[in-house]
Amino acid sequence: MAEEKGKITTQAEDFPQWYQDVVREGDLAEAAKVVKGCMVIKPHGYAIWEKIQAGLDRRFKETGHKNAYFPLLIPMGFLNKEAQHVEGFAPEVAVVTHAGGKALPEGEQYAIRPTSETIIGHFFAKWIDSYRDLPLLINQWANVMRWEVHTRLFLRTTEFLWQEGHTAHADHDEASEEVLRILDLYGDFAHNVMAMPVIRGIKTESEKFAGAVQTMSIEAMMRDGKALQAGTSHDLGQNFGKAFDVKFQNEEGREDFVWQTSWGVSTRLIGGLIMTHSDDTGLILPPKLAPVQAVIVPIFRKAHEKEKVLPAAAGLRDELKSAGVAVELDDREGKRPGEKYYEWERKGVPIRIELGPRDIESGEAMTKLRIADGKVKMPIATLAQDLGGVLDGFQDFLLERAVKFREDNTVTIDSWGDFTDVFKDGESRFAWCHWDGTAQTETAIKEETKVTIRCIPLEGQGPDSEPGKCIKTGKPSKRRVLFARAY
Amino acid sequence: MAEEKGKITTQAEDFPQWYQDVVREGDLAEAAKVVKGCMVIKPHGYAIWEKIQAGLDRRFKETGHKNAYFPLLIPMGFLNKEAQHVEGFAPEVAVVTHAGGKALPEGEQYAIRPTSETIIGHFFAKWIDSYRDLPLLINQWANVMRWEVHTRLFLRTTEFLWQEGHTAHADHDEASEEVLRILDLYGDFAHNVMAMPVIRGIKTESEKFAGAVQTMSIEAMMRDGKALQAGTSHDLGQNFGKAFDVKFQNEEGREDFVWQTSWGVSTRLIGGLIMTHSDDTGLILPPKLAPVQAVIVPIFRKAHEKEKVLPAAAGLRDELKSAGVAVELDDREGKRPGEKYYEWERKGVPIRIELGPRDIESGEAMTKLRIADGKVKMPIATLAQDLGGVLDGFQDFLLERAVKFREDNTVTIDSWGDFTDVFKDGESRFAWCHWDGTAQTETAIKEETKVTIRCIPLEGQGPDSEPGKCIKTGKPSKRRVLFARAY
Repeated sequence: MAEEKGKITTQAEDFPQWYQDVVREGDLAEAAKVVKGCMVIKPHGYAIWEKIQAGLDRRFKETGHKNAYFPLLIPMGFLNKEAQHVEGFAPEVAVVTHAGGKALPEGEQYAIRPTSETIIGHFFAKWIDSYRDLPLLINQWANVMRWEVHTRLFLRTTEFLWQEGHTAHADHDEASEEVLRILDLYGDFAHNVMAMPVIRGIKTESEKFAGAVQTMSIEAMMRDGKALQAGTSHDLGQNFGKAFDVKFQNEEGREDFVWQTSWGVSTRLIGGLIMTHSDDTGLILPPKLAPVQAVIVPIFRKAHEKEKVLPAAAGLRDELKSAGVAVELDDREGKRPGEKYYEWERKGVPIRIELGPRDIESGEAMTKLRIADGKVKMPIATLAQDLGGVLDGFQDFLLERAVKFREDNTVTIDSWGDFTDVFKDGESRFAWCHWDGTAQTETAIKEETKVTIRCIPLEGQGPDSEPGKCIKTGKPSKRRVLFARAY
Repeated sequence: MAEEKGKITTQAEDFPQWYQDVVREGDLAEAAKVVKGCMVIKPHGYAIWEKIQAGLDRRFKETGHKNAYFPLLIPMGFLNKEAQHVEGFAPEVAVVTHAGGKALPEGEQYAIRPTSETIIGHFFAKWIDSYRDLPLLINQWANVMRWEVHTRLFLRTTEFLWQEGHTAHADHDEASEEVLRILDLYGDFAHNVMAMPVIRGIKTESEKFAGAVQTMSIEAMMRDGKALQAGTSHDLGQNFGKAFDVKFQNEEGREDFVWQTSWGVSTRLIGGLIMTHSDDTGLILPPKLAPVQAVIVPIFRKAHEKEKVLPAAAGLRDELKSAGVAVELDDREGKRPGEKYYEWERKGVPIRIELGPRDIESGEAMTKLRIADGKVKMPIATLAQDLGGVLDGFQDFLLERAVKFREDNTVTIDSWGDFTDVFKDGESRFAWCHWDGTAQTETAIKEETKVTIRCIPLEGQGPDSEPGKCIKTGKPSKRRVLFARAY
C-alpha cells in the first residue's frame, strides 16, 4: 500500500485509503504490525476515547450502573457452556496455554476474553440469591480480544477497548426495559455528543449476538454511504442464567433463573466519528469530543512583536481556559504559523485563533472554523464569552450536516433492479426495503450483493410500518427494514 | 481457611486473615478462583480505584504527560532484547500460543504484557528522530499479568490494573529529574490523598527493576509493621534505548540513544490503603478517596414518621450533594438502622448521619465519625457547610495517626542481637541500620531473617547521613538504610 506521509487521498478517489490517511495525519493511531491486527492508540486518539468514556460513564452512573472489573482470562470450559456463544466466539479467541514457565494442563487453559458474559455469569451466580439482590447493574471498562482476519484501525482490531454492561433482572419485562434504556442512552450520546445521527432497531436472527435472544443496535451512516454498527444492546433472556446457574428466589419464594442483558460500545466509535465528519483536509471533531477545542497561533516576526504577542496570547489562553474552553497555545519555536495551521487542521481542532501585533492593536483576532471558507474577526475582549456559542453552533452544524447527508443518501426501493443498481460496484446507501422475514432470503441477498439487513427499525426510526412485498422474493412483508453495506 | 461471612478476625489474632476479612466485609474484591491468582474488583473496590485514577491522572497531565494505549500482547522475542529484563520477567509471563483456531508458529507467540517497556521501546524508536521530539512523556492505564505463585487480593495478583509511565529524554540529567518528579508526585499523592505517609528512597541493586539503572520507591508502613512498596520510578538509562534502537539526533547533530524512565503504581495501593487505616471493625477510608463520604440513615417506626423523615433526609442529601459531599441516602426498606450502620461501617464510610423525627424537630442530627467513641450532634441547617470541615479534619486525623503509628514503630538499631530481636517471630518494624553496602551482606541478612533493605533513603527521608558500622559485618557504612519485612 502506498502510504505517503503528509498526503491525504480524497474520499472520492479511494475512501478506505482516505480513512487511513486521516487517522495517520490526525496522529490518532497506528497499526502495531508486530502484534497481529492490534493498534497503538496515540495520545490524540486516546484523548478522544477519554472524552467518550467520561460522557458515557457519567450516563451509566446516572442510570444506576456501577463499574467493576473481572479477569482478563476466561477458563476455556466457560465458553462452552452456552451453545450459541461458543459457536460464535471460539473460532476467534486467543488462548493462553503456557504460564509461569510451564505448560498448562488441557483443562486449565484460558481464553483472553472476547467478551465477558461467561465469567460474569459465573460471579452473578455467586452474588445473587434473592430478588432483593436484583436488579444487578454492572459495567466494565476493559480491553478484549477477537482474532479477526481483516483488521482496520479503530473499526476492527484484534484487541480493542470497550465498555461492556452486564445486568441481571427478576423478570423479562424489566430486562427488556434495560435493553431499550441503554439503546436510547447510546443513541442520545451518538446524536448529541458525537453529532452522529443513528437509527435504532432490532438485528435479524442471523446478525444477533451469539447467545442473545435479541440484539438491538444503533446504525450510523458513514460518508461513503455504508453503515456502521456503533453499539449493541442484547436481551440475553435466561440463556446465560441457565448456562451458569444464576438462580434467585423471587418474591413469591419460588426459584427462577435471572433475566440478563449485556451491551457495549468500543473504540470503534472513533472510527465512526472520523467517517461521519472528516473531509479531504483531514480530521474534523465535534467540539464536545475534541480534546483541543480551540488553538491559539501567535504570529510575529521580530523580537519586539514576540514580546507583545506571546504574553497577550498566554493571557487569552488563560481567559478561554477559565471560560471552560479546552484551549491550546501553540507557541512552539521553529515552526511557521502556516505549518501550525496545517497540523491543527489535520488534528480536527474546531476553531483556530490567529493573534498578531495588529490584531492586538485593533482588539480583534482572526478566527477560522475547521469547516469554513473564510476567516472571521472576533473581538478579543469578549472572545472568552463568545467562543462557547461558536463551538455550540459548530456542534449543531456538524449534526445537521450529518443528518442531511444521511437524508440525501437514503432511498426507498421497491424493485430488485433498483436495489442492485443502488448497490452496484461496491457503492452503498441506506435503503428501506420490504423483506419477507426469512433468513433464507436475507442470506440470498447478502451472498449476491454483500448488502445486509442492518436492522428492523423501532417505531419512528424508519418509514411508518406498512405491509408490502419482499424486494427479492415478492412474498408478503410486514414492514420495511434497513439495508446497507456495512463495516 | 476458615472464612466466616460477617466475621472480622482481629489484627492481633491473625493479621493476614484480618486483611482478607476486611476486604470481604467491605465488599471490595474477591478471589476469582476459577482464574489462577486473579481477582474480581467489586463495585465498592473499583470506585476507590477510580478515585485513585482520577487523582493521579490529573497530576500526570498537569506535569505534561499524555495517555496512550499499547497492545496487550508482546512478541516473545521483544522480552529477550534486554538481558536483565528477560531474566526478571520471562519466568512469570503468560503465553499465547494459539489464536483464531490455530497454533501460532514458535516465532509468532506472544506474552501477555507483564510491563510495557519493550513494546513501547519499539514504538519510541519509530516516533523519535530528533531532540525536537523529546522529551516524550507517555502514560498508559492498563491491565498487566505476572504469573505469581503466592497471591493476595490487591497486594499481589496475577492480573492487576495499573498505570505505567514511559518517558524518553535527550540526556541523563533530564531523565533523572523526571524519575524524581514522579517519585515526589507519588509521595505527595500517598501523603495528601491516601493519608499514607511514605519514605522515598533508592532500591538496592538486587531489588531494582529488571532492566533499570536505578529504581526509586515509596515505602509505606502497614499496621503490622511491615513495609509496602507502594510505587516505583525507574531510571532506565540507555538500556532500552540500546535494546530497541531508540536513537535521536541531538542539538549538535550527533546521533545518540535516548535516556528513558518508567514508573508505576497499581491496584496494590488499595491494599496499602486498607492496611494503613482499617481496624478490627473493618474498612476505614480517608475522605479524599471514599466513594461514599457520608451516609444518611433515616430513622422511623410509624408511617407518619416515615412521611416526615424521608423527605427531610432526601432534602439533606441534596444539600450535601450540592456542597460537594459524596453522600448516599440509605432508604432501603426491610433493613433496620442498626444493620445499615454495621454495613456502612464495614464499607469504611467516614461519617454517618442519623436522622429521625426528634432530630428534625430539634434541628440537630446525630453524627458518628467512622473512628470515634461517641456520636456528635450537629445542626441540620448548617450541616452542608460544616461537613467539609469535619471530613477535612478526619482526613488530617488519619494522616496524623498513621504518621504517629510509623514513628512509634520505627527504631534505630546498632547491634545484630537487637536486630534479630526486633524482627523475631515474623514481627516487623521500620529499622534504620548501618549496612556495608554489599549485595552479599544484604543476601545474608535476607536469608537468615527474611528482612530486606526497603530503600536507601533520599536526603531528609531518614536519619541524617552519618557513617557507622554495618549491623551484620561491622564493616564501614556510609549511612543508615531502611530495613523491614515487606509485602
